[in-house]
Amino acid sequence: MSSESVAVVLSGCGVYDGTEIHEVAAVCVALSKLGKTPVFYAPDKVQFHEVNHVNGSSDNETKRNVLVESGRIARGKVLALGELQVTSADAVIFPGGFGAAKNLSTFGVSENPVVDQEVERVLVEFHEAKKPIGLCCISPILAAMVFGGKDIKVKLTLGKQGDGWPFGGTLDKAKEFGAEVVEMNVNEVCIDEEHKIVTSPAFMYDGKFHEIQEGVTQMVNAVVDLI
Amino acid sequence: MSSESVAVVLSGCGVYDGTEIHEVAAVCVALSKLGKTPVFYAPDKVQFHEVNHVNGSSDNETKRNVLVESGRIARGKVLALGELQVTSADAVIFPGGFGAAKNLSTFGVSENPVVDQEVERVLVEFHEAKKPIGLCCISPILAAMVFGGKDIKVKLTLGKQGDGWPFGGTLDKAKEFGAEVVEMNVNEVCIDEEHKIVTSPAFMYDGKFHEIQEGVTQMVNAVVDLI
Repeated sequence: MSSESVAVVLSGCGVYDGTEIHEVAAVCVALSKLGKTPVFYAPDKVQFHEVNHVNGSSDNETKRNVLVESGRIARGKVLALGELQVTSADAVIFPGGFGAAKNLSTFGVSENPVVDQEVERVLVEFHEAKKPIGLCCISPILAAMVFGGKDIKVKLTLGKQGDGWPFGGTLDKAKEFGAEVVEMNVNEVCIDEEHKIVTSPAFMYDGKFHEIQEGVTQMVNAVVDLI
Repeated sequence: MSSESVAVVLSGCGVYDGTEIHEVAAVCVALSKLGKTPVFYAPDKVQFHEVNHVNGSSDNETKRNVLVESGRIARGKVLALGELQVTSADAVIFPGGFGAAKNLSTFGVSENPVVDQEVERVLVEFHEAKKPIGLCCISPILAAMVFGGKDIKVKLTLGKQGDGWPFGGTLDKAKEFGAEVVEMNVNEVCIDEEHKIVTSPAFMYDGKFHEIQEGVTQMVNAVVDLI
C-alpha cells in the first residue's frame, strides 16, 4: 500500500441507506488533486435496509450488501473494512449519508445506538496512531459515540440548528455522547488539532451541490494538512 | 420549471450497469457553480442487468429499476424521462457509465444496437430546438447513433485509442454510425458549434478522479456557454 493512500470508509451507495454520493465524489477529487490515492473500505455485511430513493419506502428484507453496493462508488475496488490496518493509510475519511447512521452505527435506527465494531476499531487505532480522521455530514456522530464512550472529549461540528438545517437535533445527541459541538456553516471546517479530527457539515445543510463540494474539499484539505 | 434548469439524464447508479457516479457528481457541481439547477430524469424501466461491482458477476433476473436506482444519485428527486419536455430545460446532459450502453441504448450488449425511444426523442427535440446537448464518456455514442441514423454528421469525441484508453474500439463504431470522431485527451472538450453538441472523454480514460472531474467540468461549462 502506497504511503500516499488515504482510506475512505463507505457505507453503501445512496444517501438514504448508504454513502452520500456527492460527498464521496468530492472527497475523491480533493484527495486526487493533492496527489493522494483514495483506497475504499466498507463493512462486508447486509445493509440495515434498502430505501427506494424515489418514493421513500424501505425494504427490510433486502439482501443488499454494504461492501458490494459501495463498489458502485469505488468502481469495483473496495476492500472489507476488517482489512484496514492503521499502517496502510496516512489518514481515514468517513463521508456522510444515512449509511453512517444505519450500517456503520445504529445511531439513526436505535434508542440505544452502537457503533459497528470494525468502525470503532479503525477510529481508535487511527486516533492512537495520531493519524488524522476526517468526517462530514452525519458521520461525526461516529466519533462522538466512540470517543465519548472512552471519556475522550473531541471537538466536532454537525452543522447548525435552525432553518436550512433539517437534522439539527443531532447536535444535542453529540453533546450527550460527550463531544464538544461547534456550530458551523456548510463552508466551514472544524479542526480538533489535539485529536486530529476534522469535520464539516456537508449535506447536514440543505445546500447546493457546489456548496457541499466546497465544504467537503476544505475538510479533505485540512485532513491532508494534518498528515 | 425554472428557466435555469438543465436536464441531466441518468441510467441507473454505478459505472458497470448505470450512471458513472463521479462523472454525474462533477456535472452537478459544475452546473451549480454556474447558477444552474440540475433536474434529473431517467427511463422508468427495469435495467438491462445488475452487476456486482466488486466481483464483476451479473444478475440478468434483477428487478432493479433504472429510475429508482438513479434516485440514489438524484437524492430522491428524479422524473421519468418521458416527462422531459424540451421547453422545460435550457440544455440536456448525459453523463457516462455503462448504463448509457445498456439502459439508454443497447450499444454495449447487442450486435444491432438501438437507442431507447425516449432518449432518441429527447436528443432529436433538443437538437431541433437548437438547445445544447452535453455528453461524456461512452454517452457520445448515443448522439452518433441517433444523428447518424438521420444522416446528420455530428462532431464528437470518445477519447483516444492507445495506452490508457481501454475502450478505444468505440471510436471506430462511432465513425461507422456516421459521426466525425475527434481524438481528444481527458482534459479536452469537443464542441460541435453547428449542432451544439459538446463531448468530453471522462472515464473513457483510465485517469485520476480530479482529471475526470476537470474534463467533465469543461464539458458543462461549454454547454452552458452555448445556452
